[in-house]
Amino acid sequence: MTANESRTDDGFPPTDHRACQGSAVTLDTAAVQRRLGRVPEWELRQGHLCRTFHCVTFRQSLALVEAIADIAEKLNHHPNLSWENKREVTVVLWTHKMDGLTGLDFDLAADIDTAYSALQVPV
Amino acid sequence: MTANESRTDDGFPPTDHRACQGSAVTLDTAAVQRRLGRVPEWELRQGHLCRTFHCVTFRQSLALVEAIADIAEKLNHHPNLSWENKREVTVVLWTHKMDGLTGLDFDLAADIDTAYSALQVPV
Repeated sequence: MTANESRTDDGFPPTDHRACQGSAVTLDTAAVQRRLGRVPEWELRQGHLCRTFHCVTFRQSLALVEAIADIAEKLNHHPNLSWENKREVTVVLWTHKMDGLTGLDFDLAADIDTAYSALQVPV
Repeated sequence: MTANESRTDDGFPPTDHRACQGSAVTLDTAAVQRRLGRVPEWELRQGHLCRTFHCVTFRQSLALVEAIADIAEKLNHHPNLSWENKREVTVVLWTHKMDGLTGLDFDLAADIDTAYSALQVPV
């Protein structure tokens, strides 16, 4: 692995199975705050990383849900989500096995942000 | 419209825009109970019609969410849903404009049941 292949703080490549292999590391408060600065649209709620996405249409919401599912499969890390009022998709992230936040949660958040931005052109 | 085209109790065709046109009729307790008998996997929670679907795989959950979205667009009636623990999809139905349950909610529930049954072959 080259330096360019890694985007995480903790030295793991971004597509391995850190959580399921038990090799993920729960981030401490300082690390969480540092990571939050990189995904500023997300907020902490009861120790989980949350963001509500407001889509333009119902179909755009579906496209976002599908994109999130693809990312989740790629990272082997699956968020909880709710889809309400036709166009509001709320994503809740944490690492179940560690009962806390890990770098994987923030990787997933960043990828979801990218997918959402890509959908902002009308669909 | 012929008699065969209608599957509802209230005389409206199943694909019109009853809710958005304000022409839906809130069902009374007896009608709700009668309709519940036709979708026995659903339950009432705080006046809403709810069912949690347990899928075999994450991908099957996604297929169910996509099917629900298609049905919702077809009926022009959109449920709230949550997708948790990779494979659990919970659907919550009510008619927002009427602040209650209408025939449209039960039509949607029945169609979602059919879609879920169709997914029970491994995907």
